[in-house]
Amino acid sequence: MATKTAKREKKSLTYAEAGVDIEAGDEVVDRIKPILRRTYGPRVIGKHGAFAGMFRLDYNEKLFKRNFKDPVLVACTDGVGTKVKIAADFKIFDTVGIDCVAMNVNDLIVQGAEPLFFLDYLGLSKLDPADTTAMIAGVAKGCEIAGCALIGGECAEMPDIYSPGDFDIAGFAVGVVELDRAMDPLRVKKGDVVIGIASSGVHSNGYTLVRKVIEHAKLDYKKVYPELQAKGQPERRLVDVLLEPTKIYAKPIVKMLAAYKTKKVVSGMAHITGGGLPGNVCRALPNDCDASIDVTSWTPHAIFKFLQKHGNVDAQEMFRVFNMGIGYVVIVRPTFADSVIEKLTKSGERAFRIGEIVKGTGEVKLVGV
Amino acid sequence: MATKTAKREKKSLTYAEAGVDIEAGDEVVDRIKPILRRTYGPRVIGKHGAFAGMFRLDYNEKLFKRNFKDPVLVACTDGVGTKVKIAADFKIFDTVGIDCVAMNVNDLIVQGAEPLFFLDYLGLSKLDPADTTAMIAGVAKGCEIAGCALIGGECAEMPDIYSPGDFDIAGFAVGVVELDRAMDPLRVKKGDVVIGIASSGVHSNGYTLVRKVIEHAKLDYKKVYPELQAKGQPERRLVDVLLEPTKIYAKPIVKMLAAYKTKKVVSGMAHITGGGLPGNVCRALPNDCDASIDVTSWTPHAIFKFLQKHGNVDAQEMFRVFNMGIGYVVIVRPTFADSVIEKLTKSGERAFRIGEIVKGTGEVKLVGV
Repeated sequence: MATKTAKREKKSLTYAEAGVDIEAGDEVVDRIKPILRRTYGPRVIGKHGAFAGMFRLDYNEKLFKRNFKDPVLVACTDGVGTKVKIAADFKIFDTVGIDCVAMNVNDLIVQGAEPLFFLDYLGLSKLDPADTTAMIAGVAKGCEIAGCALIGGECAEMPDIYSPGDFDIAGFAVGVVELDRAMDPLRVKKGDVVIGIASSGVHSNGYTLVRKVIEHAKLDYKKVYPELQAKGQPERRLVDVLLEPTKIYAKPIVKMLAAYKTKKVVSGMAHITGGGLPGNVCRALPNDCDASIDVTSWTPHAIFKFLQKHGNVDAQEMFRVFNMGIGYVVIVRPTFADSVIEKLTKSGERAFRIGEIVKGTGEVKLVGV
Repeated sequence: MATKTAKREKKSLTYAEAGVDIEAGDEVVDRIKPILRRTYGPRVIGKHGAFAGMFRLDYNEKLFKRNFKDPVLVACTDGVGTKVKIAADFKIFDTVGIDCVAMNVNDLIVQGAEPLFFLDYLGLSKLDPADTTAMIAGVAKGCEIAGCALIGGECAEMPDIYSPGDFDIAGFAVGVVELDRAMDPLRVKKGDVVIGIASSGVHSNGYTLVRKVIEHAKLDYKKVYPELQAKGQPERRLVDVLLEPTKIYAKPIVKMLAAYKTKKVVSGMAHITGGGLPGNVCRALPNDCDASIDVTSWTPHAIFKFLQKHGNVDAQEMFRVFNMGIGYVVIVRPTFADSVIEKLTKSGERAFRIGEIVKGTGEVKLVGV
């Protein structure tokens, strides 16, 4: 032992030996350059590799003068929870980046903002250039869907924090909204209609419970379960259903909001994340109103029934943890409900009336659970 | 086994049983509210707990009209590397938040920007309200030092990604700079003076190597090593020296830049992070210039000599991994060098001439290593 220790002490240590591969990092930077550029508009300036990303606010001095009298920057940060664990275990790296963008820009647009730019943080055990590039390409894909520029990111190789193969991803989005069009919970009134927009599946919340259910019920991620298949679609394994990317609502919502000159059409919005419909719609409510939501007014995806059955999860608990088929909620004045649904449908969304605003105390009442 | 499985399958699963404690999260939110508010200025609007943070750009329509003709948003993201591992192992949670802010705002100001707001992402194994509040209080402290508002954050409890006690922290900063005062590497010219500003220690890079050195040489984090003590200062254990927060250069740099009406005084800047002086100062150089840095012109902190000796690390490698005592570099026109040093010194920084810009190929030459 003494000899061994002496040898180790004599040995000159370098950063690469200590587990940080700078060359692999450089390779990723080279690979992602063209991918990032696809998300750039003319407002992104400065060179790749600078200390910070740069985004010109009033390109040609037009944007602000034309559109904004009193611009408010809106910013948020979020990750994708333990959905990353499933991605890591099955080495499917191209979708969680989309989830990461979705979780952030869907929060941004709740304030009435349009997304401007995005940055991502990747913490991982070992920087494999191909896998890491796939993750960042997913982020860039999400930015394209959301209509924002991916102007920066960080990739931190931390073998002592992340187990081999594991990683975490966090994102950061900035948008802008005209001050007097920013959302305000005080705008929601009794009689308003609650419109739900369909989710694409479990989205990015509740995966710790998802994984426990699968473990407890001894389900197989790689199995094709008949009850999870959609007619006329290619067969999908359980893992594929679970890694379906979170829907990004930015473009349809920004377009719909822009179509109305008066701010009184949409009185509130909510992104359905952890806490489900009850935990998120309440964030859009004033203290004197409840949202009464009829859960029989839409059909949740088969995956929710599947998880509820196999985990023997209480129905109320399902609604507190999962989106249960509704990924985004728009609360509108009753006379505009059909018009808003029509606009969202034209943008390719499945949107339907799921409830109404009634007198109350700022809570969400689920009817029919 | 069959009975056991049947029992498990019958058991109803809840989110709390699956390892996510929503109530602990709510407790943290309540605790940090007053801490965050201290970082707010009048430009932060909206209520705590909203889907996204909101920052008014031209409060009272004065800021932009008075100061900015062509505002450019500058944004970046960074973590603190495996410095978090030492913090986690020794349960010292109040400093890494400062590091996280430092790593980001020091990157922002390199572009000439002043920091506006900040958001943080915490990934952790178990949300302990006291420990998590300490981490976020550190972030808020960093924001106060940097002069920016902490308008949002995310705390993700992921017991399957992070080992018990472990965590990761990432930050996101946004600042603003007038377009024609944004930094441009093409501005640096032969004859410019390279000014170094002292770091506070290892800062937040190279900790994977630091930890390997300590492990290989069987050093004791809790020991008070005489060679690491500063005269007249309280005794500090190795772990305390290593967790010294990264210096935040935002206020002295923003103040110094604002003092010169002409943009030609400061021709380039660099935040010395991973890659050290050679890897970061080169990012401020045009293709036809080198920076010649005389490493005998300042005395690195004792911790660097300590790590080099115990790890038997090559001197060149030390300069590629660590800041070696210089945390930030300002490249200035020669006639202004004394004036810039004087201004930085008045702000409480230790700043000194460490080299000059010569003809070359965009590289950093270290003299005297």
